[in-house]
Amino acid sequence: MLQETAILVGKKPPMNYVLACLTAFHEGAGEVVIKARGQSISKAVDIAEIVRNKFMRNAIIKEVSIGTEEVPLREGGGTKRASSIMIRLSKSK
Amino acid sequence: MLQETAILVGKKPPMNYVLACLTAFHEGAGEVVIKARGQSISKAVDIAEIVRNKFMRNAIIKEVSIGTEEVPLREGGGTKRASSIMIRLSKSK
Repeated sequence: MLQETAILVGKKPPMNYVLACLTAFHEGAGEVVIKARGQSISKAVDIAEIVRNKFMRNAIIKEVSIGTEEVPLREGGGTKRASSIMIRLSKSK
Repeated sequence: MLQETAILVGKKPPMNYVLACLTAFHEGAGEVVIKARGQSISKAVDIAEIVRNKFMRNAIIKEVSIGTEEVPLREGGGTKRASSIMIRLSKSK
């Protein structure tokens, strides 16, 4: 079965997540899914492009999808809506 | 032939671009392509989700793709690389 690793993009510098992707592929993942919400969406696209253009020329973007998620608020309960992105990277044969 | 309108997301508030999408569909566009670069990528995803979830429940996201573009620098010439996104919205029948 195809091993899949998910990476959630947060507040760290982009290269941390690039390294996480490369490590996952190196450890045998067939696919790496990069996920982000809100302002981190731009960073997620940067990360996928850096992996593909600079470090793994044989990586391909298999799927990109966007959506809306309910995010719990820290104070007082309730939720707010935030846009999200999912980028699926895969190694070409 | 299917009429297509392109909207480039810049520094204006998201609702300006949402309105531009709705106007394009209203004027007969079969598809609207939302494009953005760099930090505006998150805003482009927000715009597509607002159109689809709040104003046009029959709009569907037909395609999402990401890439890298060479952007000319304002001073001294030369270019820098910037990530980009393209979101294709379409009206379902």
